[in-house]
Amino acid sequence: MSSRRKFLRTSALTLTASGFYPLLTRANDQGFVAPQPDSLQLGIAGYTFHNIPMDQGIAMMQRVGVSALSIKDFYLPLDSSPEKIEEVLGKFRAAGIQVYAAGVIYMKTEGEVDRAFDYAKKIGVNMIVGVPDYELLPYAEQKVKSSNIRLAIHNHGPEDKLYPAPKDVFDRIRNMDGRIGLCFDIGHGARAGADPARSVIEFAPRIFDLHVKDISAAGTGERAIEIGRGIIDFPALVRALKKIKFAGRCSIEFEMDTKDPLPGIAESVGFFRGVVKTLA
Amino acid sequence: MSSRRKFLRTSALTLTASGFYPLLTRANDQGFVAPQPDSLQLGIAGYTFHNIPMDQGIAMMQRVGVSALSIKDFYLPLDSSPEKIEEVLGKFRAAGIQVYAAGVIYMKTEGEVDRAFDYAKKIGVNMIVGVPDYELLPYAEQKVKSSNIRLAIHNHGPEDKLYPAPKDVFDRIRNMDGRIGLCFDIGHGARAGADPARSVIEFAPRIFDLHVKDISAAGTGERAIEIGRGIIDFPALVRALKKIKFAGRCSIEFEMDTKDPLPGIAESVGFFRGVVKTLA
Repeated sequence: MSSRRKFLRTSALTLTASGFYPLLTRANDQGFVAPQPDSLQLGIAGYTFHNIPMDQGIAMMQRVGVSALSIKDFYLPLDSSPEKIEEVLGKFRAAGIQVYAAGVIYMKTEGEVDRAFDYAKKIGVNMIVGVPDYELLPYAEQKVKSSNIRLAIHNHGPEDKLYPAPKDVFDRIRNMDGRIGLCFDIGHGARAGADPARSVIEFAPRIFDLHVKDISAAGTGERAIEIGRGIIDFPALVRALKKIKFAGRCSIEFEMDTKDPLPGIAESVGFFRGVVKTLA
Repeated sequence: MSSRRKFLRTSALTLTASGFYPLLTRANDQGFVAPQPDSLQLGIAGYTFHNIPMDQGIAMMQRVGVSALSIKDFYLPLDSSPEKIEEVLGKFRAAGIQVYAAGVIYMKTEGEVDRAFDYAKKIGVNMIVGVPDYELLPYAEQKVKSSNIRLAIHNHGPEDKLYPAPKDVFDRIRNMDGRIGLCFDIGHGARAGADPARSVIEFAPRIFDLHVKDISAAGTGERAIEIGRGIIDFPALVRALKKIKFAGRCSIEFEMDTKDPLPGIAESVGFFRGVVKTLA
């Protein structure tokens, strides 16, 4: 057994010993085989765990072998003390999980922009997944320049007054600093009529992060479902991502079964890996 | 919502009401979107559930949207009464699951061959996944002819004294009735040195059923793991299955986490579907 495998097994047992949901970890005698490295890197978008205690969220990520998280504030509030930050980040580190971004963070005032960038700096991430109001974009650009922290603006579908589709982000930031880009939510984008694969090609240099999900149908009010069960053409998406040599994270955001998301996360992770593997 | 979707949701709620593990079913307001039909048909090999009560096994199949089961005797013993058979099959029917085969059934005497074929007839399946001793093959062939029930002989890896690899089945049945063939266990076959994709091509007309799994390495004593994490080349396997126009079931047999297999089943189902979708 490699030291990494041993390490992961040990940390899983430590988590079990701390008393949370035992079914999430494997029996001691079964070990752990990490998935093979994907040519596209997977992650989890933090909202996936909005009804899940953090230790369980960590165990779920270990179970499906995904080691990068875009953290949401319910695991690490924006006003966290240095001690709280160290405690939370320490748990992820111990579990072999990289907190690679923070968000989605909404910004409606300059003070909220300041707070978001201060938070990102304090927790040590170099990317904010955020939604600044239009008039705050120049101020956010200043913060990007002074902090060297990237801002990935998130599109939220036809109901979103600011950024329904990736083009609504791109058109407003295309002439701004190159460190302002998109967290392209392919589900919300598709609901707003944007073809995910074509959008990846079209907005390539500005796509920093992805929220990956499937949807049952396009349009308003449709919901996200397990990857592979819906209308999004994942082989086309993965081909596009490979074509642009996407080096960011493909972070799965699973929004069903919020109190029991692990089976849906696992199916989604499996499907995406199956597509990536087939196109490798 | 289609009537099938409504039906599945209703049956899931019925199961919840009967009191078993509530996390296996979805919350009422989340509905159910069945996976799209695959060009290769998925199933579950019954051994997957050997530590799982039947109602939970049914709920797990519904959760991952797989609707065919090769039933194992711990859910329906070989000496079951007609009432017991109707009770068990009724539960699967109500859940939208087809019991398409029975096995693995070992046969070491003519009496055990008789019992296996009587059982298959009584429970209404037209295929036995079985392991008859060599000297019983002619007797089993007679039973196949008289019953018109197919016999798919299962290979069980390097430790198996009778049928380690698919070739060990094929060489003994190639001149027998065309209704005797293979349940090709790709994991055990690969452990015995058989390349799964090449074996599919080589033994094509006699491959009736598949046990689909991944393995961490070839050889004796290696174990089955989540599909996609191991050494089996699934894109090559699926290409081979499509090339021979395989019309049987690709039944996932997940052998880890036997008291909590759902996440691994879901990941495996997702990966396989992702490969199939990409090669569609």
